[in-house]
This record gives sequence, structure tokens and C-alpha cells, in this order.
Amino acid sequence: MNKKAVVLLSGGLDSATTLYFAKGKGYSCYCLIFDYGQRHSREIQSAKRIAQSAKCKYEIIKINLPWKGSSLLDFKKAIRHSSGIPSTYVPARNIIFLSFALSCAEAMRSKAIFIGANTVDYSGYPDCRPEFYAAFSKAAKLGTKIGVNKSAIEIFTPLINKTKSDIIKLGKKLDVPYQLTWSCYAGKGSPCGKCDSCRFRAKGFKEAGLRDPLC
Amino acid sequence: MNKKAVVLLSGGLDSATTLYFAKGKGYSCYCLIFDYGQRHSREIQSAKRIAQSAKCKYEIIKINLPWKGSSLLDFKKAIRHSSGIPSTYVPARNIIFLSFALSCAEAMRSKAIFIGANTVDYSGYPDCRPEFYAAFSKAAKLGTKIGVNKSAIEIFTPLINKTKSDIIKLGKKLDVPYQLTWSCYAGKGSPCGKCDSCRFRAKGFKEAGLRDPLC
Repeated sequence: MNKKAVVLLSGGLDSATTLYFAKGKGYSCYCLIFDYGQRHSREIQSAKRIAQSAKCKYEIIKINLPWKGSSLLDFKKAIRHSSGIPSTYVPARNIIFLSFALSCAEAMRSKAIFIGANTVDYSGYPDCRPEFYAAFSKAAKLGTKIGVNKSAIEIFTPLINKTKSDIIKLGKKLDVPYQLTWSCYAGKGSPCGKCDSCRFRAKGFKEAGLRDPLC
Repeated sequence: MNKKAVVLLSGGLDSATTLYFAKGKGYSCYCLIFDYGQRHSREIQSAKRIAQSAKCKYEIIKINLPWKGSSLLDFKKAIRHSSGIPSTYVPARNIIFLSFALSCAEAMRSKAIFIGANTVDYSGYPDCRPEFYAAFSKAAKLGTKIGVNKSAIEIFTPLINKTKSDIIKLGKKLDVPYQLTWSCYAGKGSPCGKCDSCRFRAKGFKEAGLRDPLC
């Protein structure tokens, strides 16, 4: 069986856990890390270190989204914590990341993509929902050579229905180096403790009864 | 009515015709041109000139696909003219291009994307088929904020069922500057006349009873 996988690695705790989960399932993982102009570019260094700690190859893909459309990309915009889809939503971000992963997987003859999306303790981003992944998988099958040849690249979202605390507990079992991860959106030297990403992380560690090594 | 559109512009005759078609329908067009390491990078200059001739704004998006997987990207591979999906197929290329277009359209509050894909006189690329566009549209709706808000960005493929000769006849009516377009994959100073793209172009002009201004 072909056990090569492409893993989308942001540097946060979800994607780090996903990488270690895929490794635990016996996959040889190739990590894609995106430098897309994000405010919290520190996560790129985190992602690199996580890939290295997992002894996996990685590629940093630099992309330019000059139209921005998100407070993560437009530093003049404040990170708002209102209800609904937050200001940190980046238009079509996961669709872009998945399309690169699909290209990479097809070129490398890998039949698996792993992404750490989840819909429980999350920000309400539409591109984290299971129905999106089902629809994207269908488009991926119809739009690729491997799909025409009656095979497919499967997109795995092992965390999609887990709470942040369950993700952290799973990660602990898998020895995920959480001290290397980075979640904060604010892009400062230490976590702001206020943004959605910091709040979900803190809640997760608290509920898991574990100490966050970054705090 | 919002009449802004994002148009994917390669520099070939299909995308040039699509741009002029969208303009003819009253859209204010923003063109995305991709520099993705293609052998025939000359098409980027063509695309730029076509956007300028149409008086449209454009953005050149540089992307890196280090895994290549195509004779268009890997200059050591020969361009083969065998049956089936040819060696020039780039894994997930149109999925990547569409995902950027979607991000751009959502950020710019445009509700239309135009792409010059067609399935008649073409190379058999899976990401040119109508069923792929239907599936991608569904994924796009589910994976974006605009989709969650019960609206959608529509993907228009006005050439999808046209022969190359019909496309050229339409382009003639729309005054598409075909002298500015570039189709050849080989990336030399003048069209090779042998690659799929040259052959479909020649066949199209011949059947339309028109002279190709490049020949």
C-alpha cells in the first residue's frame, strides 16, 4: 500500500497533532507550510520546527494574496472578536491550501492529504466544515488525472469533530511537541491571550487538565 | 447589479476571448495572470498585453509548484503527443487558479469568475470538463463566507462547449486582438506548430476560414 501523505502544516496545535496522527498511522509525510502574508508569520518557523521534530520533509510555499480581505493579512484592520465569521477569515484560504496539496499529492503519487480542520472549538470558518471537505473531494476527483483514472486522493480530517481538549489529549498520547506550536494571531513575541485562537487553546488545555508549555 | 468579474487570463486565445466576452456582457474585469514556472512563460507577457488592450486591471500571481509533475514545468521532460491525458497536464492547475480567483472575488465582492475552459478541441485535461466546474462551484459555495451568507460566486465557462473555430469566430466579432495571444507550449521565439496547443489553434483558424495573425 502507498503510504505517502501530504500534510498541511500551519504551526498551530491542530495541524501538529494531525501530522503526528498521520505518522502514527504509518504514513510517510510531506508537509506543506504556507507563507501567505499572515500577520502571525511566527507560525511558519513553528511549522518548520514541528516538521523537523517529526523528521518529515517539508516545503514552504510562498503565496501572495494582494486583495487581502482579512484582518490576518491587512495589518491596518483590527482583529475583531464579534460573533459570526470573524475578521480573521481569509477568503478561500483552505481551498487554496488544499489545491496546492492536491497538486503536490498527484505529482508525488500520494493518495492521502491530511488537514487539521475542526468544527467544534473553532472560529466558525466555513472552510472547516465536513460538508465543504466532501464537496471539495468530489471536485478534486473530477478535476485530476488520477480521478479520471478511477482512483482518488483522499482528504483526511481526523480532528474535524473533536473538541480542542480531545485534540490536546490525543496529541499528548502521540507526543506532539506542543512547546513548538504557535496559535496566536496577533503576531507578537508572546501569545496575546485574547484572540480566538489563544482563547480556544487556553480552554482546550484547561479542559484537558494540562499545562500549556507556551504559558 | 454588481458587475465586477475576476477573469483568469493565460494569454492564449481562449482566455482572451473569454475576457472580451465578459467585457461585452458589461462586466468590469479584473484579470489574474499566473506565473507558475511554465515553459512558455512568454504567455505571461501576452496576457499582460491583452489585459492592457482591454483596459482592464490585472495582477500577476507568482506561484511555485516545486513538485512539477508536468512536462510544462519540468524542462527535462519532453512534450509528448500521445493519446489520453498528455504530458503537459499540470496536476490540479485549474483548481489552484480557481481557488485564487475565488479568494480574489470574495475579497473584492465580485460575484463572477470567468474561465476559458473548453472540452471540444482540447487536450483532454480533466479540469476543463463541465462536471468539474459544477463540483468546484459547490465546494466554493460551502467553503466561503459569501456561501454561508446564502449568496454565491458564479463560475462562468462561456466557451466550454464551443469548437476552437467557433471560439475564434466569436472572438473576431468581439475584436479580440489575436495578434497579442500566445498558444505554443514549447516556449521558443515562434510557435512550434507541433504541440497540441499549436495544432488546435491552427485547426481552429483553418475551420473558421481566417488567417492566424501569428503565422
